[in-house]
Amino acid sequence: MQHVFDRCRPLIDGAVANYIPELALVDPEQFGLAATTLTGETAGFGDVDTPFTIQSVSKPFAYALALELRGFDVVDAHIDVEPSGEAFNQFSLDPATGHPRNAMINAGAIAATSLIPGDADRATPALLDYLSRFVGHTIAVDEKVYRSESETGHRNRAIAHLLRSVDVLEGSPDDVLDTYFRQCSALVSTRDLSMMAATLANGGVQPVTGDVLISPLVLRRVLSVMATCGLYDGAGDWLTNVGLPAKSGVSGAIMAVLPGRVGAAAWSPRLNEHGNSMRGVAAFRMLSDEFGLHVFEVHHSIADARTR
Amino acid sequence: MQHVFDRCRPLIDGAVANYIPELALVDPEQFGLAATTLTGETAGFGDVDTPFTIQSVSKPFAYALALELRGFDVVDAHIDVEPSGEAFNQFSLDPATGHPRNAMINAGAIAATSLIPGDADRATPALLDYLSRFVGHTIAVDEKVYRSESETGHRNRAIAHLLRSVDVLEGSPDDVLDTYFRQCSALVSTRDLSMMAATLANGGVQPVTGDVLISPLVLRRVLSVMATCGLYDGAGDWLTNVGLPAKSGVSGAIMAVLPGRVGAAAWSPRLNEHGNSMRGVAAFRMLSDEFGLHVFEVHHSIADARTR
Amino acid sequence: MQHVFDRCRPLIDGAVANYIPELALVDPEQFGLAATTLTGETAGFGDVDTPFTIQSVSKPFAYALALELRGFDVVDAHIDVEPSGEAFNQFSLDPATGHPRNAMINAGAIAATSLIPGDADRATPALLDYLSRFVGHTIAVDEKVYRSESETGHRNRAIAHLLRSVDVLEGSPDDVLDTYFRQCSALVSTRDLSMMAATLANGGVQPVTGDVLISPLVLRRVLSVMATCGLYDGAGDWLTNVGLPAKSGVSGAIMAVLPGRVGAAAWSPRLNEHGNSMRGVAAFRMLSDEFGLHVFEVHHSIADARTR
Amino acid sequence: MQHVFDRCRPLIDGAVANYIPELALVDPEQFGLAATTLTGETAGFGDVDTPFTIQSVSKPFAYALALELRGFDVVDAHIDVEPSGEAFNQFSLDPATGHPRNAMINAGAIAATSLIPGDADRATPALLDYLSRFVGHTIAVDEKVYRSESETGHRNRAIAHLLRSVDVLEGSPDDVLDTYFRQCSALVSTRDLSMMAATLANGGVQPVTGDVLISPLVLRRVLSVMATCGLYDGAGDWLTNVGLPAKSGVSGAIMAVLPGRVGAAAWSPRLNEHGNSMRGVAAFRMLSDEFGLHVFEVHHSIADARTR
Repeated sequence: MQHVFDRCRPLIDGAVANYIPELALVDPEQFGLAATTLTGETAGFGDVDTPFTIQSVSKPFAYALALELRGFDVVDAHIDVEPSGEAFNQFSLDPATGHPRNAMINAGAIAATSLIPGDADRATPALLDYLSRFVGHTIAVDEKVYRSESETGHRNRAIAHLLRSVDVLEGSPDDVLDTYFRQCSALVSTRDLSMMAATLANGGVQPVTGDVLISPLVLRRVLSVMATCGLYDGAGDWLTNVGLPAKSGVSGAIMAVLPGRVGAAAWSPRLNEHGNSMRGVAAFRMLSDEFGLHVFEVHHSIADARTR
Repeated sequence: MQHVFDRCRPLIDGAVANYIPELALVDPEQFGLAATTLTGETAGFGDVDTPFTIQSVSKPFAYALALELRGFDVVDAHIDVEPSGEAFNQFSLDPATGHPRNAMINAGAIAATSLIPGDADRATPALLDYLSRFVGHTIAVDEKVYRSESETGHRNRAIAHLLRSVDVLEGSPDDVLDTYFRQCSALVSTRDLSMMAATLANGGVQPVTGDVLISPLVLRRVLSVMATCGLYDGAGDWLTNVGLPAKSGVSGAIMAVLPGRVGAAAWSPRLNEHGNSMRGVAAFRMLSDEFGLHVFEVHHSIADARTR
Repeated sequence: MQHVFDRCRPLIDGAVANYIPELALVDPEQFGLAATTLTGETAGFGDVDTPFTIQSVSKPFAYALALELRGFDVVDAHIDVEPSGEAFNQFSLDPATGHPRNAMINAGAIAATSLIPGDADRATPALLDYLSRFVGHTIAVDEKVYRSESETGHRNRAIAHLLRSVDVLEGSPDDVLDTYFRQCSALVSTRDLSMMAATLANGGVQPVTGDVLISPLVLRRVLSVMATCGLYDGAGDWLTNVGLPAKSGVSGAIMAVLPGRVGAAAWSPRLNEHGNSMRGVAAFRMLSDEFGLHVFEVHHSIADARTR
Repeated sequence: MQHVFDRCRPLIDGAVANYIPELALVDPEQFGLAATTLTGETAGFGDVDTPFTIQSVSKPFAYALALELRGFDVVDAHIDVEPSGEAFNQFSLDPATGHPRNAMINAGAIAATSLIPGDADRATPALLDYLSRFVGHTIAVDEKVYRSESETGHRNRAIAHLLRSVDVLEGSPDDVLDTYFRQCSALVSTRDLSMMAATLANGGVQPVTGDVLISPLVLRRVLSVMATCGLYDGAGDWLTNVGLPAKSGVSGAIMAVLPGRVGAAAWSPRLNEHGNSMRGVAAFRMLSDEFGLHVFEVHHSIADARTR
């Protein structure tokens, strides 16, 4: 992994997200890379302990919590599970169902957050507590980023009102957005995300605390949706070349899961044209190739055994 | 599996494909279900030896052959690997690249066939021979279905000319379509498809003959594209609920692969609104649930081991 | 015209708009038809003096006021003039320009209203005063409909936030919507709309008061946009079969203009699938055919003169 | 008009169409401008007698002939009359009706040509004869351009097969295309097109020969469709700023009609991004402004009369 880290560090293409002023202030040179085993040991390289806002990497966890608390029937009546070729912040709902296409694009993620019971006063701490249990310690909200997102998030506000107009979102759009913007502003490190990924890889059981955080069918669902919808426009490219359920965020983080094996995370702020971390994508491509992590890799031992 | 077969047989919803006259003549009650191990043993239920035309289940194999013969650079310059929410016979090319979105929709499949070297006289036998080596015996073409498709395939003809107009297809559209229509009219049985699936599951090595038919990176690619694009509009639904790389065809066949474990196939002519076999989809959902075949299933033993 | 009125009265297809509760309460049997000459004489049939909310028929006037007060350069930097096949309440902005396609769909109409100088306290009375001058007397706002639209107008709220996110709308979305919802709730009668249409037909000069309300180039623009975009999805059908610049509204009103000749209006609450008054559309088709009002009608006298 | 001609001549932006090799060979400096009165007198400037292929300017005439020979019911069951924001050579059919959106885009024009009775041997001379009668003398086909279009027209071939697949086109796609490519390759001059426009302006009566070539309802229909769909993507812009039913072609021609008043044509090969002649568009904008030709221009005399 040190080798992969060293080879990705020189990549300085791409640009830091600037759609909210606070995000644009980050030092673009930062780079962290970590992997965590199912027994909770983390190997970390670079800036693995620097905090950043979790942004869209929170989406699979909010989706999981909605599924755990409301069940498949309710959640599936609001959010589809179809891949979407679109950018993360597009408006279109599925023309046939009228639902967001999946919970990894903003429309579906806002809908998922709205399904967490209670108004913002109750839903926000429930969600932050859930994220904290994956990390293994209490996580805080970056209040500056939260306010910045809340003041400038016109597009998310438009999406929430659109969802309200088609009865996908049932409460007050402003209230749901308050939770959503705080959820996106939760502070994590690369090490934290790697532990969260390891919890998913470990069947939903936090490797260190032993907390059972996701039930088997919800986990299968969340990993499936991450596999096809986790990296926006580049989803097909990602599944083809890296082959791991994963989720990226606009702060430059990517979290990836090899089910039953290992969790990993990368963080570096410069993004490619799809909004995914340049170094993060490069690092996971190399890791997948060098360690044979692709979920559809048929390991040679199997074939060899047969052809002997 | 007998249990699954028995439970799916009473399903009589859906309708047999009628877009070509020959396909509409089939007995809709027929139903075959088979699974083949990596050592080549097949368990079969129902009409597993009845021949039918392979139709779109040929697409992953044509794509594999194009990748083997022309390489990733050439093929990827013509066909993308992005999921497509569209029906199999839509026209739209990716607006950014001008390419078919993937090799599982007709546009991408016709492009893949066009990349097999030589004109129809040379490409058709090369492709039929490749398919035959997966099955393990020589397969024939249903000449009636071939002529019927050739005479009534106006939409595929339109697609081929569209591809020609944007230089994705380089030869003569009519010549490429001749190969394509023959490829789709190749005769296989459920047992044959199960063996083809087992070859993919077995790292590209035919379980009985030991023939090495796909190289590791091409196999990984083909399985990845099958996982996200194999069942048309229902792709997200399929990956979420069944979780296996698979390919369906309009004759009512579905072939599915659990990499490193097993290959399987189902065939029954009545189709759902996405063009996938009603009984086939039902059978694979049950098989996946009962045997834990979903690729993102984290097996309990792993989690249990950790939480003990 | 009495003849046309009598023939359209029996039409009872279609349904009253119910997207806001207040609109659904109207008596669906009501029907008014009126035409006004350039000297201000009105011939009226049926319920020509019953008040109803103007709804989208206000759009050409708000667009005219924005053009008069801000000029073509400013307005054209925010709103396009291209026909749109879409329903009136769709979200999509032109992919190339990022602007609403025209000022007759909600997105463009909200943008036009936002261009009227001042916040709601100033823009609302300016706009109501402008509408009043076309009618020739002061018009009131239906406060119940206004409140109903404001409370349930989630889709318009989504559109306003979307416009804000792409900088088409510059002020506060809520403030602009306050003016917009009041503008749509202005109370007019069929007789009033006929006089407004006559003002447009009369080169922008109110026939009775002599008020000059639109300058020639703005009038030409407004009539052009009405001609291609005034009746939503049915625009091509309307221009082909009726051939008059016109605007419909969800309360069941249609206002039409034969430039240099006559203004006319119809009102009856039942709507067709495009949201246009069933009886109104039927009445204008008959009027156009019987009186040769189509703008592309080449009158026989001309051709006759030539071929004598 | 000399003044307008002189001011447009220096415009050298844009590029000559190169989608078929033969079209690219034309001298781009050429420029003709002509107007013809209802009595058949033509004022011409520049290269008004140079022949070029008529291309898409043939479309309104083919549509008119189809309407005359088959009637509204038959033609309207195959081709819609809705404006289309799309480029001329796009594929999409209306999702609701499955028809081409109008007869001015290639899909609708090919469908119109297919409705002319008989196979190519009969339809081609019928169509060329019809065009000739508008011009007033027999017109020839440029065989080189015809062959070039026939050999390289992959996109039109794709469109024809698509239309065949949805039963909009009933005969043989190749046969229909043979007529269509010859129709587009008919040789006309700017003077010829001006006379054709004058025939439309004159109620369908050829000003010189007195031939009655279009019936009143077909003329109204053709002018309506030209008004909204005649200049591809720039249709709204054209109607707003020029305000005349018109049709452009890729050879650089634009024909425009002021019903009951005058016909006009411009020709210069360099095209803007929408495929319309740069100089042609500029010339018509100036002519419309200076002579008040916009169909929605309310002439001052009318308003003046009222406000005196």
